[in-house]
Parts: sequence; structure tokens; C-alpha cells
Amino acid sequence: MLIVMKSGASASEIEKVLEVIETLGFRGHSLPGANRTAIGVTGNSGAIDPAHFENLAGVAQAIRVTQPYKLISKDLRPERSVIKVGNSTIGGPELAMIAGPCALEDHEQVFSTARIVAESGARFFRGGAYKPRTSPYAFQGLGEDGLKMMAEVRDQFGLNIVTEAMDEHGVDAVERYGDCIQIGARNMQNFSLLKYVGQTRKPVLLKRGLSATLEEFLLAAEYIMAEGNYDVILCERGIRTFAAHARNTLDLSVVPAVQRVTHLPIIVDPSHGTGRNYMVEPLARAAVAVGADGLIIEVHPCPEDALCDGAQALTPGQYLGLVEQVRRLSEVMSESTAAHAGK
Amino acid sequence: MLIVMKSGASASEIEKVLEVIETLGFRGHSLPGANRTAIGVTGNSGAIDPAHFENLAGVAQAIRVTQPYKLISKDLRPERSVIKVGNSTIGGPELAMIAGPCALEDHEQVFSTARIVAESGARFFRGGAYKPRTSPYAFQGLGEDGLKMMAEVRDQFGLNIVTEAMDEHGVDAVERYGDCIQIGARNMQNFSLLKYVGQTRKPVLLKRGLSATLEEFLLAAEYIMAEGNYDVILCERGIRTFAAHARNTLDLSVVPAVQRVTHLPIIVDPSHGTGRNYMVEPLARAAVAVGADGLIIEVHPCPEDALCDGAQALTPGQYLGLVEQVRRLSEVMSESTAAHAGK
Amino acid sequence: MLIVMKSGASASEIEKVLEVIETLGFRGHSLPGANRTAIGVTGNSGAIDPAHFENLAGVAQAIRVTQPYKLISKDLRPERSVIKVGNSTIGGPELAMIAGPCALEDHEQVFSTARIVAESGARFFRGGAYKPRTSPYAFQGLGEDGLKMMAEVRDQFGLNIVTEAMDEHGVDAVERYGDCIQIGARNMQNFSLLKYVGQTRKPVLLKRGLSATLEEFLLAAEYIMAEGNYDVILCERGIRTFAAHARNTLDLSVVPAVQRVTHLPIIVDPSHGTGRNYMVEPLARAAVAVGADGLIIEVHPCPEDALCDGAQALTPGQYLGLVEQVRRLSEVMSESTAAHAGK
Amino acid sequence: MLIVMKSGASASEIEKVLEVIETLGFRGHSLPGANRTAIGVTGNSGAIDPAHFENLAGVAQAIRVTQPYKLISKDLRPERSVIKVGNSTIGGPELAMIAGPCALEDHEQVFSTARIVAESGARFFRGGAYKPRTSPYAFQGLGEDGLKMMAEVRDQFGLNIVTEAMDEHGVDAVERYGDCIQIGARNMQNFSLLKYVGQTRKPVLLKRGLSATLEEFLLAAEYIMAEGNYDVILCERGIRTFAAHARNTLDLSVVPAVQRVTHLPIIVDPSHGTGRNYMVEPLARAAVAVGADGLIIEVHPCPEDALCDGAQALTPGQYLGLVEQVRRLSEVMSESTAAHAGK
Repeated sequence: MLIVMKSGASASEIEKVLEVIETLGFRGHSLPGANRTAIGVTGNSGAIDPAHFENLAGVAQAIRVTQPYKLISKDLRPERSVIKVGNSTIGGPELAMIAGPCALEDHEQVFSTARIVAESGARFFRGGAYKPRTSPYAFQGLGEDGLKMMAEVRDQFGLNIVTEAMDEHGVDAVERYGDCIQIGARNMQNFSLLKYVGQTRKPVLLKRGLSATLEEFLLAAEYIMAEGNYDVILCERGIRTFAAHARNTLDLSVVPAVQRVTHLPIIVDPSHGTGRNYMVEPLARAAVAVGADGLIIEVHPCPEDALCDGAQALTPGQYLGLVEQVRRLSEVMSESTAAHAGK
Repeated sequence: MLIVMKSGASASEIEKVLEVIETLGFRGHSLPGANRTAIGVTGNSGAIDPAHFENLAGVAQAIRVTQPYKLISKDLRPERSVIKVGNSTIGGPELAMIAGPCALEDHEQVFSTARIVAESGARFFRGGAYKPRTSPYAFQGLGEDGLKMMAEVRDQFGLNIVTEAMDEHGVDAVERYGDCIQIGARNMQNFSLLKYVGQTRKPVLLKRGLSATLEEFLLAAEYIMAEGNYDVILCERGIRTFAAHARNTLDLSVVPAVQRVTHLPIIVDPSHGTGRNYMVEPLARAAVAVGADGLIIEVHPCPEDALCDGAQALTPGQYLGLVEQVRRLSEVMSESTAAHAGK
Repeated sequence: MLIVMKSGASASEIEKVLEVIETLGFRGHSLPGANRTAIGVTGNSGAIDPAHFENLAGVAQAIRVTQPYKLISKDLRPERSVIKVGNSTIGGPELAMIAGPCALEDHEQVFSTARIVAESGARFFRGGAYKPRTSPYAFQGLGEDGLKMMAEVRDQFGLNIVTEAMDEHGVDAVERYGDCIQIGARNMQNFSLLKYVGQTRKPVLLKRGLSATLEEFLLAAEYIMAEGNYDVILCERGIRTFAAHARNTLDLSVVPAVQRVTHLPIIVDPSHGTGRNYMVEPLARAAVAVGADGLIIEVHPCPEDALCDGAQALTPGQYLGLVEQVRRLSEVMSESTAAHAGK
Repeated sequence: MLIVMKSGASASEIEKVLEVIETLGFRGHSLPGANRTAIGVTGNSGAIDPAHFENLAGVAQAIRVTQPYKLISKDLRPERSVIKVGNSTIGGPELAMIAGPCALEDHEQVFSTARIVAESGARFFRGGAYKPRTSPYAFQGLGEDGLKMMAEVRDQFGLNIVTEAMDEHGVDAVERYGDCIQIGARNMQNFSLLKYVGQTRKPVLLKRGLSATLEEFLLAAEYIMAEGNYDVILCERGIRTFAAHARNTLDLSVVPAVQRVTHLPIIVDPSHGTGRNYMVEPLARAAVAVGADGLIIEVHPCPEDALCDGAQALTPGQYLGLVEQVRRLSEVMSESTAAHAGK
């Protein structure tokens, strides 16, 4: 059930609707928009009678929702969401650049990479303190020590920190030290973890699972939002197919598909999405051209020495070249959108 | 590193080897076989010098292992493992039948199904108390109340209880009430959860992820074993492909592939593996014929009323027909193996 | 449009219906069944008014068909088709065994393999004279010389010859020398070739394409039948997925799916379906257990010397072991079907 | 075997090398480059002794080639090929635009579309006269009448004609009326057809098969070139995966992968690659940004009336908007390449 308030509805009218929802044993989610507020109702197992709401003051319409998702939907919020992450945003007119090493290794590696990222004009620093590794014998990350380094990076360079959590303990730690909690592809349907991050108040970067359909991807976001955390950023990072020339097949068609259904922003990870150094720049350009809200890029001072995923990390020089190219494309995209809007 | 003891090595010689491993900062895993004991060494990031061990009393050989897995390997344990689950086993000569409803719904449903399962001669009862659901608004399971019902089923029917845990809280609860902890396909690479069940002493039924390669599947088992829990049963439950005539594509070739590499038993789930009622029986027959160690089958007193996955659950009559057919095929398979061995 | 005749309809009544169909500018396909004859109408671009037929003598019913296929459908012919191939059949109670080398290489190889195949009790000999090879520089087959050897094999051993044609010239040659024209997976949607074999009067073995959906597979058969050749045998030979432990993923669930929709027989090719010698026997057993009408198996006197696909060919000893196993399983399957029917 | 001539090698020296190749029973393919000529040798089943060539006049080097392909390789021809198609080229600095309806329907539809395509500045007109259709009962194209209309379009608008052939008869007809022979995705491994178009002297547009690996795609091109036709243009048109939000998954990573290995140009078909009208423009932008040499786009005066694939065809207005956007991106790409080259 979706309740659309009139454009002039008062705060107390909205409050009253939320009370009625609670009285019925359901949960209300108020999402203010530019012109009007919409209220999503969740927790009902079957249909709810719209008559409960239609005659309340300030209510424009009560709509039965048949799609499996509600909170992620453009029906609830027609404007695209701009998510605040630390002192910056993702989803607005500026292309969000998130860059850094795959895994945090030591102070020297972290700070030399952070300097390059800051100088490139990016606003977000990524780096894994807790690493999901296919083998139990592979490097598993620096843990909390890594998170403390990230917090220093924020203080010194003003970069906002995006880093992965793999379990409840990790979520607590990232919430303490970071600015955005990343949920990795392998945990996209770890429903307990989704619910747990849904109870934090830090934005969540949700990566698409290796074999997730569009609907499963959106419902994973819905899991987080249903717990009350509406700040979800989606991320395409390649799907698993028969094709072997890249580590994954980057599915750029999911960007317009996501934008058609949901108000949430979506970024692209061409580093994991291809797993090949030489493919990162062309696919980053393609991601910007297809309309993604940002990029997440692996950069490492010495890719050949990286403890994790060195084959795909860019050198500092390659990274700066990429930033220059995608900036130019992003400007052209904005001009053409502006020209289009001006017609 | 794999240390193979001589066939007459004493307990104290084995103990001594384990001590040396610990002194070096690594972890030793002793796996006794019919003729000899092998000791796997984990926790090393690089190669270990075999000279540390080759001159110790009772050591036959110290072998460098280049494969990414060790504990699951037939190199470590050439005989196939027979895993004790409650008062029965999986992996031995008898085909293991695990049956029950997808989700536990109420006392009546649970007990009427359990009666049929017990009467069919199966030794294991399955049923979900915690359900991984794609949508946050779908039925999420009875939780601990369901587990208590399962414990009653064990008391009343002598069936061993197999049920899924989705997080640490769930693992604790299943360890308390059940006989075998199931890790679902969506959590196959939830590495934190794998480590956690690796620290329990209940056997683990590990389902293959929807897009897991053979190596990823085996390394997930290795994660559990690396923590010290060696009782892992693998389960093929269908992979995600382009084919739409079934919900998943049941990959029966993984059974001989697994058996070639590992000593662990592998069972097949034709219910989730096809998602279609009419396919369950033929694919169950095929799974037995390909050489699986057991089957896990969904049965429901009234599939059309099921709160979860009703489309694939068998009616009691269909289930009993299936049991009859697979028993007969299993006998023929055993006869032909015996005839073969006798040649 | 599908016209079902009354069970006592006379030949002249059937003839009259066919005439009316032709007068309307369409094409009629008469398919006699055990109890009644059904007539499929093709060539119409839109719906046909059933009134044209309902009042003709002998007509029981005129049914509008909305599925994309007609001639392959069980609606047209509820009994399963038994296809005559040379002096034997495929689709009847007996499991059809088709065996031989991937590629024909020389007289010695062909005849020594044929002797083994004949001695095993198989009724069909396979072998490629025209080979579809991924590389233009790989061995392309013996061509017509190979077909002549196959014809000698038939004369000497009484085996029926199944061999692939890749183009119109090949179809003509196979029609001349062989008993069954195989259309390979890569040509499953070579619609010109499908139409061409549809105009021959030799049975066609149609292999499923590497990424063909069930519907595409059935429509490829429909292409052949729409030209008037109703003797089509389907063959599952593995699909392309992300899984790398086998060359293809053998999709056994397609067997019950096919049998649910069509009256055509379906066989399984575990040799190409797995591409691994050690997997052929277990998957052959599984194919029989799932209900396939036959098997097509690669056997070679010296697999290690094979010019094509040696990795998957069985040795003569392995092949004879396989035949023994599948025969036993096939008997059990027949007994249980008979028992079932007798209830 | 690859023979690289010295940069000053004379025509008669090259001729002499070709003669020696022929004498040895192989086939020589001379491919002149900007600085030097390379000669590929094909037709050998095993290794050839480089000594046959190394002492001939004008030979710089004789290189053994271990990759499965030779003629498509950058080793043979380091410069990117620019293919002449009618009075224009594909593979040069200008983005090639190929546009038109999926299927040719009638004079009015063909000419009204051609007018829009010509006015947009595109140099190539596409349109199917022979249509590969999944169902035998779907519209199969206008055949030769359609080709005659295409020839009129060339005369009237100066557009070069790109159209599909499905069999030898079709190749002959397209060679007569058109400028570029398209081989569709379903025929990518129709090796007989590849050889046949390899014997024509019209350029070939080769579409990637739905489940073709990179190597299979390149070897299909090699098939054509091995017959002596070196004018091959590759085309990515989407692969088959589990993802259902688009008809196919457009694999843009194949563009840099192809460009790394081969000198042949590659274009992208976002219309078939997505099958969704609203995705065509964003994916066309992405294809240009990733570095494709051109685009092939379906446009139809009234998509909702189209006899084939209407769901993906652009309206004239949408098409003109797309052209404007991709032109601007293409300019930016060229500027940045130029800037890069100038450094």
C-alpha cells in the first residue's frame, strides 16, 4: 500500500497517517519528495483496504501496490534520490568517483594511494579492511587496524570512506569508522546482514550478486529500506556468464533498467566487472556514457605487488588518465541532457 | 603442506607432529584413515620447507600442495568420508533420504509430513524454521518455535533433523535443537558464517551457490573444515542458466566431478534443482543413477496450500512413489558396483 | 488450427478435410494416431474460423492453437512417436544405443569400432564424415569417402547409420548413404538447412543448440516437420553455462520437459554433454534414469590418438561396461513403469 | 606460420615467397601493411620448418604461430584494418552508422526509413530481406524483391546496403544487389556458409553468436579469411545469460578484448543487444564510449506496426536524437585520443 499525500499536506497530517498505519499493526515509511510526501506501508501479508486512509486529512490517494517492491519504487518517489555520504553526495549531477586499493595492506600503501585519489578530485576513498576471499588461506584483510587507517585518511585528505562489512561485527566497526557500508556481491542475498545494515543510519553501497536478476537486486535494496535505512546506492559489478575473456560480464543494460524502476542511484565497478587492467578505462567510459551516477575504481601504487586482485588495479598514472577521460564524457552527457531539457 | 604418517605411526608420534606445526605458527588437522593418518597444515601464507617434518618419527612423507584446497582433498584422505548425522550416516552404502516441507508452518503440517517421511523409511527430516526469502515481505519462517517442533519430531519418530541457519544466532539455535546445520545456496560464500559453523561440532550440509564453480564450492567446504569441523556434506541444488523450463538447471555432472577430487559425500536436491513438481521424480532417479549419496526432497501434505515453494513440493503419494523407484535403482547400482568390485 | 477427426472417420473424410485446407490456401498435415487422426493446419498468418471445418463429415473438433508450435505437439498426437530408422526404431520400449567414433578417420578405425558396437547389441552406428570444427585449420572429416565406409558398415554389420550433414550438399550425400541425418548443435537454428532436411524422407536427429531454450529447440523441430518430414528425434547434448568442470552442462531436466509437450522421442549425448571421459558413464546412467529414449556415445579404439574430441571418447572396454550398466537400469525402469501401469 | 617481409621487399620477392608456400602444398595470404607486408600460411596440419623461408630474399622473419588463429591476428597486421564497404569505409576515424528497419516490409516503409537514415548523415542502410525467424510460421522476409528495393535505395540516397544472407542462394543474391553481406548470430558457426562467403569478394559483417566465446568468434572470422576474403567486420549483438531485464546481455567488454587481438573492426548492435526500445540510446552511447567502430540501429517509421522486432526499433525522432548524442561522444573520444597521441 502506498499513500500519496496532497502537495500542501501538513506535518501533523502526515503524522496522523503514520499513527493509523501503526494502529493497524503495519509499518509506515515517510519519504518526502520535492512536491509531495509519499508514505509506504510494509508489514502487511495481504491487501489492505484503501478506505482506511482515503478519508484522512491531507491524503491525495491510497494505491494498492502489486509489484514485489515498494520502497525502492519510483511510484513512491518519482524524483531520483540524492544520497548524502559523509560530506558529499551520490546521485546528484556530479559523477561520484570512489577510488582506492582492493585491500588495505599497510600505512604506506594506503596513504600514497589516498593522496593520488584526493589530488584527482575524487570525493570517496575505498579500501577493504575485511576481505571476502574464495580461499580460507588467502589474505583476509587488516580488520579494525585497516579501518583506523581509513579514518586517518578522512581526517588528512577530507575523503569519505567506503568500505565493506561482511558480518554484524564488521557493520558495527564500519559504522564507527567509515562513511558508507559496502555489502559485497557474495552477500547480496545474506538477508540477515541486509536487515542488520537496515538498522544502521549510515548509507549502504549494495553490490549486485554474481547471478542476481534485476528483481532480486532491487528486493535486496528493499530489505535494507524495509528496516528504515533509505540511503541505498546500487552497484553493478559484473555477472557470471560463459564468457571467459573477462572475469565477469559487466551488464551495463542494468543501469537504464534500474533507473526505470527505482529512484535509487546506481554506480558501476569496472575493476571487478572486468578483472582486466586494460579493460577498466574503456568500460569506465562506457559506464559514464550509459548514465551511471558514479564509478568505483581500484588503484594501487604497485599493482604487481598487490595482495589482492592486482591484475585489475590501475597504476596511479592510468587512474589519472581515466579520471580525465570520464570527466570530459560526463560534461558532454550533462550538456546534452541540459540541451534536451532546454528544448 | 600435507604430512602422511606411516601406517604404524603411534598416537604420540602424531601428537609430536602437531606440536611442531603449532610451534611454526601454523595449524594442524589430523584426519585418521583406514590405513594411515594424514595431517593437513593450514595457516601458512607461503611454502613450508618439508625438511621440518620429514625426519620426525612416524612420518612417511611431507607433500607440498599446490591446489587451493587441502582438507577436502582425496590426497589427504583417499577413502570416501562417511558422516555421522544424529543416529544415522550420510556417505555410506545406503542412499540417504532427507525429506520434509520447505517451510515449517504449523504443528499439524509438520507432524503429518513427519509421519509420512518416517513411514517411507527415510532417516532424516528437513524443514525450514528460518527461511531465506527473496522479498522482505514474504513469510520468513516460524523461527525457534519451528525448531522446537523439529526436536519433538525427532523424539516421536526417531528422524534426524536437518535445517537451515542463516546467521550466527540461527547456528546456535540449530546446534541446540537439530542434528545437521544446513547452509543455503545464497550463503555459500558468506565466509563469516562458514567460519562460524566451522567452530560448531554438528555436521554441516553445504548447498552449492547458484553460480558457484566447482572450485568455489569445494573452497567453501574448506572454509568450514579449516576451522576444525570436518563433517561436511555437499549438496547440488541447481545452477542459474539461461534455460527457463526449470527454475534452475540441475548440474548432475558435478557429482562425479566432486567425487573425483574430494572424500566428502554429495547429495542432490531435485526439488529446488528443478522447481517443478513433475520433474522431481525423474531427476531424483537421475541423481541416484549418477551416483549421489542421497536426496533431499520437499514433501507437503497439501502442496497447493504451502506458504513457500508449493509448486515443487510432492504430495505424500508422489513422494512414496519416488522412494520406491529410487530404492530400486539404488539397489541395482549397488549390485553393479559389487559385481564390478568382484571382477 | 488443429482438426481432430472422429475415431471412425473414413479415409475419404480425411481427404476432404485436407482439400478444404488447401482451398483456403493453407497446408494440412495428417497425423494418424492409434484411435483417431489429427490434422494440423499451417501456413496461416492469423486465426482461422473453426466454422470452416466443424460441419464437415468425420470432424470431431476444430481447435484454435495459441502455442507457437503445432506439429510437434501432444495436442496433435497424444501417443509418443516411434520413429523408424533403417531397420530399427527410436522412441519405442527398447533403449536406442547409437555409438561410434566422433570423426571417421580410416577404414581400420571405422571397422574395428563398428565391430564393437555391433557386438554390444547396439542397432545404430554414428561417425562424422563432415565435421563442424571451431577452427578452419582442424581436421574437417573424410567427406563422401567416409560416408561410403559407413554404407559398408551397414552392409557388413547390419547397423543403421547416423551421421551429420552441415549443408545441402551434405544432406544429399547422407540421404544417399545413411539412415538418419544428424543436424548438429551449431546448426540448430540454421533455418535454411532445417527446411532442406524437412524436404527429405530420412529421419532427422536434431541436436539442441548450446544456448537454445526449450521453445527454440521445439520450434527447430517444427521447422523440419512443417516441410512434411515428421520423423524427428531430439537430442540433448549439453548447454553452455559458467560451469567449467565439464565442457558443457548436460541439462537432463529438458527430457521430462520435452516429453510433457511433444510426442517426439528424445535421446541424450553424454559424450559431448560432458566432454570428459570419466563423466560419460555416470551421466549415461542418469540419462536412462531420467527417461531418455536412447543414448549417443563416442567410442574409439584408441581415444588418445583420436583426431577429434579424444578426451571424451570411451575405450572399447569402457563402452561395453557402460552398455551393461545402462541395460540393467533400463530394465528396472521398464519393470517399474509396467508395475505402475498395472496398478 | 607467419612470414614478415622486410620493409623494402619488392613485389617479386613477395611473389616468390607465395610460390614456395604453394609448392609446399599450403596456402599463402598476403596482407600488405603501411610499412611492410606479412604473409600468413594456412593449410598446414602441423608445424612448418621456418628454414624454408628464412633465407629467401626480402624475408625479415618466419614466425611459428601457436594461437589457433592467424589471419585475424595483429601479429600478422599490427595496424587496424579499414574495410571498404561500397563508397565508404568501416574501421577508420569516423563512427560508422548503419541504420534501417529489422525486416523490409514494403516500398513505403523502406523508402521513408531510408530518407531519415540518409538525412541523419549515416552512410549505411540495413534491412532484412531474408529473416531468420525462430518460428516457421513467422514472417520470413520479402526475399529478392526486398533486395531490389535496397538496390533502389542505394541509387536514390547513395546509402551502402548491408543485409543478411542465410544460405548460399542468399549470399549470391546479396552479392548481386548489396554492398555488405551480414552473417547472423545463429549462423556464426555455420561453417559451410562461412566458407561460401569467404569465396565472395564483398565485405562481410559477422555477428557474434548468442553463446560464442571470444575465440570462437575470432575463429569464425578466420574461417572467412582463410578462403581469401579479408574484409570482415565483427559485430557484438548481445549474449545469452540468465538476466531477463533485456532480451540479451550486451557484452561491451568484448570490444577492447577484440581490439587487443585482431586488426579487424568491431561494431555494436544495441537494438538486438537489448531488445528494449528505451535501452537502445544509452547502450549506443556506451558502445561509442567503449571504443566501437560503429553502430547498427533498428529504426522504423511506426515501430508498433513492425512485422518483426517492433519492441526494439526506434522511432525516427528517437533515432535522430541518438545520432546527435553519439556524434558528440564520438568527437570527444577522438579529441581525447588526439590529445593523448600528441603528448
